[in-house]
Amino acid sequence: MNKAQKSAAMIAIGDELLSGRTRDATIYHLPSWLTARGVKLKEVRIIADEEDQIINAVNALRAEADYVFTSGGIGPTHDDITATSIAKAFQLSLIEDAAAVEVLTNWYEGRGEELTKARRRMTCMPQGASLIENPVSGAPGFIIENVFVTAGVPKIFQGMLADIDQHIEHGPISVAYSVRAPAIESILSAGLEALQRQNEELSIGSYPGKSGMGGEVTLVIRGIDEGQVKSVAEQVLSLVTEHGFEGVLMAGDGSNE
Amino acid sequence: MNKAQKSAAMIAIGDELLSGRTRDATIYHLPSWLTARGVKLKEVRIIADEEDQIINAVNALRAEADYVFTSGGIGPTHDDITATSIAKAFQLSLIEDAAAVEVLTNWYEGRGEELTKARRRMTCMPQGASLIENPVSGAPGFIIENVFVTAGVPKIFQGMLADIDQHIEHGPISVAYSVRAPAIESILSAGLEALQRQNEELSIGSYPGKSGMGGEVTLVIRGIDEGQVKSVAEQVLSLVTEHGFEGVLMAGDGSNE
Repeated sequence: MNKAQKSAAMIAIGDELLSGRTRDATIYHLPSWLTARGVKLKEVRIIADEEDQIINAVNALRAEADYVFTSGGIGPTHDDITATSIAKAFQLSLIEDAAAVEVLTNWYEGRGEELTKARRRMTCMPQGASLIENPVSGAPGFIIENVFVTAGVPKIFQGMLADIDQHIEHGPISVAYSVRAPAIESILSAGLEALQRQNEELSIGSYPGKSGMGGEVTLVIRGIDEGQVKSVAEQVLSLVTEHGFEGVLMAGDGSNE
Repeated sequence: MNKAQKSAAMIAIGDELLSGRTRDATIYHLPSWLTARGVKLKEVRIIADEEDQIINAVNALRAEADYVFTSGGIGPTHDDITATSIAKAFQLSLIEDAAAVEVLTNWYEGRGEELTKARRRMTCMPQGASLIENPVSGAPGFIIENVFVTAGVPKIFQGMLADIDQHIEHGPISVAYSVRAPAIESILSAGLEALQRQNEELSIGSYPGKSGMGGEVTLVIRGIDEGQVKSVAEQVLSLVTEHGFEGVLMAGDGSNE
């Protein structure tokens, strides 16, 4: 949308996301977190706990986006294969990271517990990784080149983002205005297309209500330049009015979730 | 998980999914719908309304999965570019489909409305496509080879799945048993790994609670052979008990959503 915005991609890892067992919360939290920081999310992939899939997704997306976020698969059990797979993707050795051992030793000591052999598994990372702090459950995530490797548990994921925030370059933040109108998408389509052509740097989207059975449509105008966004939103409102319908102009993307 | 199961992939298309505006409901509905039909979902991608991204994702995934589902971008406005992009992915002409024109003419006539030029846009499909019925708002989806092109509006998406159901081959349905236990993942990990090795055709997953702050863990055993799944679940329960903890064995994947 803007050359000055960095781009991002996300890979959510876990069989449970694909079986329908778990509704992944990380892929709902990250998009708005990035939007609020002026980073443009280009793609999300949800894949299984399978080494080949992880390697392929990481290698494809780290070449395409400035930042790649992975979530899931960094716990202490046999199905946690993210760190091993990412080391292979980068053709790096998987080592027991000394800084991670120290963090976890202190974390468990502070709780009167021990860094057992199984827990040490969570200190294994590609050589040269730097740590992402985990304020919730201790075991750190890690950064390797432009890839941020985080946990899939929503609270831990969010905790790690607080640390990651300092490592990403914030860009110009896009703003959105919306026009809510009766569901007359097909009547407006020619006019909307013309406005989009005249304002290529904006994103103009047309979103019917969830039911799909008539009712309302929300037209969302998004871009970096608030004056331009608002002006185009006013033109969209005029378009609605010209066709004899009532529309409502609102700041924001019209999301009510 | 089983050779007799067909595989599937999904592509959810829409800028609004990546900006954080919309939480996509289609990617939550499809996984459990497929699991209930014995079809294994391998991957989900969420991409923008951009032609190159759509072409690349469709061509990558239709080669890897038996069935590919796309959702979104088939309405009447300028940002609805899915049909055009899919025609390009298959190197087919985009044509006004005669059957779709008939369906939509009748749909609007039945409502005292007309198939306007803008609405005719929704009848454009790759040459040779067959239609997917849309009982909610008329405009059909389409099938081209192994790709099912559907709407992103949740109610319409679900309506289209009812028609798609007859076109996919149902496979053996996996069953799940779960053991809920205190959060002692690291204590159980060696035992779980051994059980996974002895039962490679099963999927044994270990899922901490959402908070990540201790509490419970759910161990999920999934596979086709219910007797084997239940037997391994009982062994997991024994593992928990041997370590002096109380666990609860349940049918199902322990999801409470």
